[in-house]
Amino acid sequence: MRRTRLDTARIRAAARMIDPVFLGTPLYRCDALEPGLGCAVSIKLETANPVRSFKGRGTELVTRLLAEDGRRAVVCASAGNLGQALAWSARGRGLDVTVVASRFATAAKLDRIRALGATLELVDGDHESARERAAALARASGIRLLEDSLDVETCEGAATIGLELAEAAPSFDAVLIALGGGALATGVGHVLKELAPHVEVICVQPSGAPAMTHSWRGRRVVTTDSAVTIADGVAGRCPIPAVLDDLLLVADDAVLVEEASIVAGMRMLLDRAGLVVEPSAALGIAAILENRDRFAGRHVVTIVCGSNVDLEAYHAWVGAAPVRRP
Amino acid sequence: MRRTRLDTARIRAAARMIDPVFLGTPLYRCDALEPGLGCAVSIKLETANPVRSFKGRGTELVTRLLAEDGRRAVVCASAGNLGQALAWSARGRGLDVTVVASRFATAAKLDRIRALGATLELVDGDHESARERAAALARASGIRLLEDSLDVETCEGAATIGLELAEAAPSFDAVLIALGGGALATGVGHVLKELAPHVEVICVQPSGAPAMTHSWRGRRVVTTDSAVTIADGVAGRCPIPAVLDDLLLVADDAVLVEEASIVAGMRMLLDRAGLVVEPSAALGIAAILENRDRFAGRHVVTIVCGSNVDLEAYHAWVGAAPVRRP
Repeated sequence: MRRTRLDTARIRAAARMIDPVFLGTPLYRCDALEPGLGCAVSIKLETANPVRSFKGRGTELVTRLLAEDGRRAVVCASAGNLGQALAWSARGRGLDVTVVASRFATAAKLDRIRALGATLELVDGDHESARERAAALARASGIRLLEDSLDVETCEGAATIGLELAEAAPSFDAVLIALGGGALATGVGHVLKELAPHVEVICVQPSGAPAMTHSWRGRRVVTTDSAVTIADGVAGRCPIPAVLDDLLLVADDAVLVEEASIVAGMRMLLDRAGLVVEPSAALGIAAILENRDRFAGRHVVTIVCGSNVDLEAYHAWVGAAPVRRP
Repeated sequence: MRRTRLDTARIRAAARMIDPVFLGTPLYRCDALEPGLGCAVSIKLETANPVRSFKGRGTELVTRLLAEDGRRAVVCASAGNLGQALAWSARGRGLDVTVVASRFATAAKLDRIRALGATLELVDGDHESARERAAALARASGIRLLEDSLDVETCEGAATIGLELAEAAPSFDAVLIALGGGALATGVGHVLKELAPHVEVICVQPSGAPAMTHSWRGRRVVTTDSAVTIADGVAGRCPIPAVLDDLLLVADDAVLVEEASIVAGMRMLLDRAGLVVEPSAALGIAAILENRDRFAGRHVVTIVCGSNVDLEAYHAWVGAAPVRRP
């Protein structure tokens, strides 16, 4: 049998290298969501930490290894969450961080990257342009390039969520995972396939940024010309072949959801669960909303992967008025 | 030396009786809040659980002991969070729950109490009227009355937060605790005074509902004729003598804050930390805002004790526009 690039023993070791502030995150059944969804829903909450996303799990690992290696600098492209987490993890480890981002990235994320002391370089294009620029910077300067999802530490960090889910896995049937570059999906998926193979691993991506889902379905890399979605954290166009190979081994399905469902998911999480989330973190609820029959009567976990939003945009999405209670 | 009604060994035992979904809650430094506050701030987040407040810690204990005792029913007065938590904990333990609340209580809390299967009785007056009615119901029916803060299990449950804080206590100087009936303050205060005596235990109450603070300052029970505050979770008028006695032993200070500061605290927690909180949970930030010099340069933990709000009221308080970034 083919194997992913990941190894569960290494992931267990990784969990011991990550600042505990990112580990053991809340996992709880959220009754209040259920009347609107028709299935049992548990939330795995990755936002109650200093960087408000799961990315700290990976950057803790990366920066620790870089520091042990004697490296002094690192550069990455980021839609905002990776850069923020990298800047947080690098503080106190003597590492200079440069983050390259699209100038259209979420302002709140860019503000936090700057506030955490990283150098921020903005490019005119989208996230793929930022990836190209970061790679060019790294080549020109000899600085280590961190590539989200390709660098296995980013997947191993995310995979520690899988370890935490596997402990609780007897109680649920499926997990809904936001799909962007693939670190979260391949990491969590790898662990669940190994430790809790009865759990269905379902990736969720916006219809407007479907490159990885199309690639998974076609079993070959499919790129797109554009990525048009409010879910900035998963808005890639160029899947990485090695990550797709892993995803093909661990994902049971990859589904696409409409923007309106993402907004409805964000609104439900605010109104019923009291959670402010970024669009990528509402993909799981969006998938349930669009596939009620598929999930009816089952127990589904959704990973709430980030909460870094521009509040003005957020208020415009969710509106001032709450969702009607059933 | 006089002792509180609490015992740290019993509190440790209590932690083993509580559903883990309420334990080990996030505790994290929140850099993004700090430019606005002038001190290091960590958040102890008690909202990421099925009842969105810390009250589940106590009700787990209460319902487990009642079930072991062969009791079939329990009644309590509640501003909403205790009732919701009691209803949650009673499910599956064969306990009928009756909650008495003011008809002016937060609708979202009352909705959840009903949704969790409890019988809800509304009274025309305020929380003190609900307490009287619950006591009368218990006397008339022989059903066990659960009295928040007086019944030591409610304090012991809350005190398990103190155990979790004590583990991290070397890193912080003060803890800010919402003060209502006193279960949270005496519970957490007891543990910190015993295990981390260098930590300053500061209770925070709204100026509009100052009965316990006046009592603490006067070292005798002081009641008030009214309690006028948006912080519904702490809006009592009649402190319980035994709880005041404990509070006198464990609190280093009790401060009052204005309504405008509570609103500003809620807004900061949303804008800078991405957290929707109920007014009582913003009392700590309000205290920092009103006492910047006192906290300057120190490291303060604030317990974010609940997030059950009516969203329409919440939006009216925090406004649609975000707080300006510094």
